[in-house]
Amino acid sequence: MAALANRLRATTDALLAANALDLAAASERGLTEAFIDRLRLTPARIEEMAQAVEEVAAQADPVGRLERQDVRPNGLRVGRMRIPLGVIAVIYEARPNVTSDAAALALRSGNAILLKGGRDAQHSNRAVGEVVALALADAGLPADAVQVLWDSSHEDIAELLTFDEHIDLVIPRGGEGLIRFVVAHSRIPVVKHYKGVCHVFIDASADLDRAEAIVLNAKLGRPSACNAAETLLIHADIATEAVPRLTRALREAGVALHGCPTTIALSGSDEIAPATEEDWHAEYLAAELAIRVVDGFDDALEHIATYGSDHTEAIVTQDVDAAERFTREVLSSCVMVNASTRFADGGQLGLGAEIGISTSRIHAFGPMGADELTTTRFVVLGEGQIRT
Amino acid sequence: MAALANRLRATTDALLAANALDLAAASERGLTEAFIDRLRLTPARIEEMAQAVEEVAAQADPVGRLERQDVRPNGLRVGRMRIPLGVIAVIYEARPNVTSDAAALALRSGNAILLKGGRDAQHSNRAVGEVVALALADAGLPADAVQVLWDSSHEDIAELLTFDEHIDLVIPRGGEGLIRFVVAHSRIPVVKHYKGVCHVFIDASADLDRAEAIVLNAKLGRPSACNAAETLLIHADIATEAVPRLTRALREAGVALHGCPTTIALSGSDEIAPATEEDWHAEYLAAELAIRVVDGFDDALEHIATYGSDHTEAIVTQDVDAAERFTREVLSSCVMVNASTRFADGGQLGLGAEIGISTSRIHAFGPMGADELTTTRFVVLGEGQIRT
Repeated sequence: MAALANRLRATTDALLAANALDLAAASERGLTEAFIDRLRLTPARIEEMAQAVEEVAAQADPVGRLERQDVRPNGLRVGRMRIPLGVIAVIYEARPNVTSDAAALALRSGNAILLKGGRDAQHSNRAVGEVVALALADAGLPADAVQVLWDSSHEDIAELLTFDEHIDLVIPRGGEGLIRFVVAHSRIPVVKHYKGVCHVFIDASADLDRAEAIVLNAKLGRPSACNAAETLLIHADIATEAVPRLTRALREAGVALHGCPTTIALSGSDEIAPATEEDWHAEYLAAELAIRVVDGFDDALEHIATYGSDHTEAIVTQDVDAAERFTREVLSSCVMVNASTRFADGGQLGLGAEIGISTSRIHAFGPMGADELTTTRFVVLGEGQIRT
Repeated sequence: MAALANRLRATTDALLAANALDLAAASERGLTEAFIDRLRLTPARIEEMAQAVEEVAAQADPVGRLERQDVRPNGLRVGRMRIPLGVIAVIYEARPNVTSDAAALALRSGNAILLKGGRDAQHSNRAVGEVVALALADAGLPADAVQVLWDSSHEDIAELLTFDEHIDLVIPRGGEGLIRFVVAHSRIPVVKHYKGVCHVFIDASADLDRAEAIVLNAKLGRPSACNAAETLLIHADIATEAVPRLTRALREAGVALHGCPTTIALSGSDEIAPATEEDWHAEYLAAELAIRVVDGFDDALEHIATYGSDHTEAIVTQDVDAAERFTREVLSSCVMVNASTRFADGGQLGLGAEIGISTSRIHAFGPMGADELTTTRFVVLGEGQIRT
């Protein structure tokens, strides 16, 4: 995998040139800002791709590890050996870094992987795929271990999803339309998230300096990412102070706001649009945010349970009981205390990279790294034991 | 859960009476021996049910446990909190013990559970369900936590399988027909195994006393169980000695045999039927066994890879390298060295009981206990960190 990281760095110019072709085509087709941002490669992003590969390479090999060993009363030694899942398919849209991240995670976890990128990123994916192929050859690994399908159609995907005898897991990454298409057509188990409607809740006891920094970062760090905040909830007890301060900071940073009546009244601004029911469900993926003043902690939890997507929620609080309760009662895959929702990311959480994020509780929940691409089998060592 | 175990014991007579109604109806309908055996309750089996509940009750509560805690370079404390899956549905056929086992495992893991037993076990399941309801009331738990649907139709199941907004996981247990029905109709993730074509491989270095004991137990301990052996593979280097001895022991124990030509030739018996391709695929669930002499270790692995069901395989060997290789290269969910395949069971492996067995690698692989009914969420504790 060291070869892959080095080759990515050494190929920066060629990767940028290939990416430029995709960016030009995307502009021409009038694709959204958020889409183009996800598609864009820069020297810094290529360096991040190389670093992600190195972080994954530095992790311990999970395969073959014996876990939870125990001796039964009859002397049988029971353990669980960690093993790869087998063959994984990742179907994704715009992000070229998925190609190198997923290749590294598959190699680390002993899986073979099929990477089917979108047509809109075909030049970028082809270029990254060539780097991966060279790195596999450097390491003496079979070329088939990572297959980048950069030029295949929608019909090809539908057919691929019927190969349940040959593929063990499908991970779709991209817009809700793509993901629903995969879920509807797949005979193979699917791990996915539809969207990220992430909340930041400013509790009554919040430190407002922290609150302001976290809200701005959660919204604006990378608005096109699924871990960007989409709704801000503010405890009524702190609203008189928090609403004017936070709405001003957000507006000055260029964020379009949709507020509940209390938010609008307390803000002292006439530039906040009244929030509709759709705003509470919205994944803006842009510099746009919904704000609601809630009656209290229970009301915040209820709002999140009603409108959340089980992705990521953050609380800003100085109250240890509130922090504890939030981590226990919010049912999302990532729960943050006094930290930005933007940390809901495999690299940030210590997985090196992520192959996807699951918002359903089966197989994995939250960002998935190499360990989540493995399972365990029972290994039982005896000395002739029979069951009586 | 102690209440449930005690109530099961105290209700033995009523449970046997209800079970007798189901057994009589099953005989009348001409259901198979294997089916009736799975349906049958005895005082010993009811005691086993009570003990399984007690074993599950004695386990540590997995919910809320913080695992894999780590501090990131920016000071964020990242951990994973173990949480329930939510609502689980178990759809099963004949075994009344599934009702109490599954109820105990769901309670231990903090999940709500729907238990849909087969019509053929309706009186038994209703009776066990009443015991569970009383035990829930004893413990002050909500009656809805465990719902036993003892009287519902095939159409009801098909409808239930569309409730993907309300049910997180479906576990079908029973014949291949039921399981394929569930997989075909479910919008909810399914964990299952279709069948158990379990192999015992007698390696060249095997101790034949152990081999004989293990083969007899694996085949005859409970022939109707999915962990019963269905095919015996014998290394050619030990065949001259092993084949006559093992075939004689099996025939004397009343097992009908299907053998490859070498087996028939070496057995000295004219009562072994020639094995056909179907025999290698067969899950007899009866006192019937296929036997093949293989050229060596590789040939045995290839036979298992071709005909196995990823359930359970055992090797009998005195060679430590062969044992190690078998545990690494056989891809099944349970791999046994010098022990009977009958140990592939949640209770025997230390899980207290099992809610099902998975032979696909997604979510869980092998027998599933309370831990396998949970997942983890990321909990991130910060002091105002933002992502730069």
